[in-house]
Amino acid sequence: MPQEFDYIRWVRTQLSESPEVLIGPGDDCALVSGSNSGWLFTTDTITEGVDFLLNSATPEAIGRKAMAVNLSDIAAMGGIPKFALVSVVTRLELGTEFLQRLFAGLHSVAKEFQVSIVGGDTNSWNQGLVVSVVLIGHESKQGAIRRRGAKVGDRIFVTGPCGGSLLGRHLEPKPRIDLAIRLQELARIHAMIDISDGLAADLQHILEESQVGAELIAEKIPIHEDAFVRAAQTGRTPLDHALNDGEDFELLFSVSQNDSDRLLEQPLEGITLCMIGQIIPEGYFIRDEQGEQHPVTPRGWQHQL
Amino acid sequence: MPQEFDYIRWVRTQLSESPEVLIGPGDDCALVSGSNSGWLFTTDTITEGVDFLLNSATPEAIGRKAMAVNLSDIAAMGGIPKFALVSVVTRLELGTEFLQRLFAGLHSVAKEFQVSIVGGDTNSWNQGLVVSVVLIGHESKQGAIRRRGAKVGDRIFVTGPCGGSLLGRHLEPKPRIDLAIRLQELARIHAMIDISDGLAADLQHILEESQVGAELIAEKIPIHEDAFVRAAQTGRTPLDHALNDGEDFELLFSVSQNDSDRLLEQPLEGITLCMIGQIIPEGYFIRDEQGEQHPVTPRGWQHQL
Repeated sequence: MPQEFDYIRWVRTQLSESPEVLIGPGDDCALVSGSNSGWLFTTDTITEGVDFLLNSATPEAIGRKAMAVNLSDIAAMGGIPKFALVSVVTRLELGTEFLQRLFAGLHSVAKEFQVSIVGGDTNSWNQGLVVSVVLIGHESKQGAIRRRGAKVGDRIFVTGPCGGSLLGRHLEPKPRIDLAIRLQELARIHAMIDISDGLAADLQHILEESQVGAELIAEKIPIHEDAFVRAAQTGRTPLDHALNDGEDFELLFSVSQNDSDRLLEQPLEGITLCMIGQIIPEGYFIRDEQGEQHPVTPRGWQHQL
Repeated sequence: MPQEFDYIRWVRTQLSESPEVLIGPGDDCALVSGSNSGWLFTTDTITEGVDFLLNSATPEAIGRKAMAVNLSDIAAMGGIPKFALVSVVTRLELGTEFLQRLFAGLHSVAKEFQVSIVGGDTNSWNQGLVVSVVLIGHESKQGAIRRRGAKVGDRIFVTGPCGGSLLGRHLEPKPRIDLAIRLQELARIHAMIDISDGLAADLQHILEESQVGAELIAEKIPIHEDAFVRAAQTGRTPLDHALNDGEDFELLFSVSQNDSDRLLEQPLEGITLCMIGQIIPEGYFIRDEQGEQHPVTPRGWQHQL
């Protein structure tokens, strides 16, 4: 929603600080103090007609997506997921078997990541299906990774190719939980976010929170093959799709130049880490193959099917 | 929803036990182990046309209700609320001012109970308004109070008059957080629940979980004055409304006979504790003024306006 970010900014002005609340609204997860490590809380809701269509997604796939997008928010903080709550607003006509298949999808992804579903709420009405998941996790030993924290000179990385998720990948996100843990062992990550709104828009969230700018290198942006298929359909460029399509659920992060060099030297099995640009004092640009700089204006992702 | 309880029963059969999960789905809150005291998690969703109507409830009232019903679930476990997450699915046409007023309602109740709103999610679509709150709290020093735990011979109490909440009280629940803490200092509470589905239906939840029965005493059931007004409209008896209307958000609990005597001798300021019956080995009855026993068949509350 266009007004969503303004509303969240306003909410943040309304809340008073509590010493136990280490991170409040505005990051991928909240963080509250715990005795050993802090607790991460996050919630994400998916709705019929916006995030999925009942005639093209199975109930299991809807359940898997609802769980996975929340796991992706825990991954974006470098955390370890533990518990989930699941809330469903259903139509009676969908029936009990539909709910059971939805739950089977939620549960399969939860089990894959050793997450216990501990509760939830089930309601019915005569309107669209709403599935809301809450995830509760621990921060890692290195501490939660915020959106703020990117420093001038940092190199910007993305964990895989982007664009064209609408062709089907948007329903099957692969939460980067294990990769985020592994990356923290290899480098000190200054800022991180998962790509839900789109690479360009999500990087902008990091820039705003960190009060810095960025220069992307067009030829370094990893473009998913689906972005080429979409580009042939839409007439936009594959790069445009890679920058502005959402729901890739790859991680986008920044590290120092030294850590960048180390990451690039040490390949990770099954992962193509791409260094796509660097943090600069201000502005938001992309440099094309001819060396020309263009301003980046994220269109964001409307999450509208 | 009629199928809701069957679905939840089925969900409980699907979940494997984790040693950290002390209470899973099926109680007012989940409980997971913490280093000092356990953490309580609960979530409750309210929807337009079912739990509220936009033409009769202000945005602030909707927000207050969404927060309060969740606080009531923490009260039902005797816990102390700490943090909240708030998820809203809105229609764009409702606008930002509507969202801000909704948030003001949520926030006012949160502040009253020293709860920090730490995060949430905001989505939009073209269908009904959905407001979902998650509450995170600590169990009390005495430990979380479950639905199971009622013992034969226990006396059954309710913390205030019931029935007719639809006349307006259903929008302004008063979470019994402080009272639940006070009661634990005065008595050992064996089982507790808050009245959302209706006194008769919620007592049945306690009976099922505790594997016991109950006999209620008709003349002891405290009937709210709103139940008389409703009875005049519906042709049902005020007692029927007191037993079967939902959303009173009073607490319903059982204690030993000794504790019952102590509670009845020691009046609590501003609270009318009512002893309404006792736990028996099996069956579910109500005794009328003539001493005749009738079976109780909870109709439950359809939460349908």
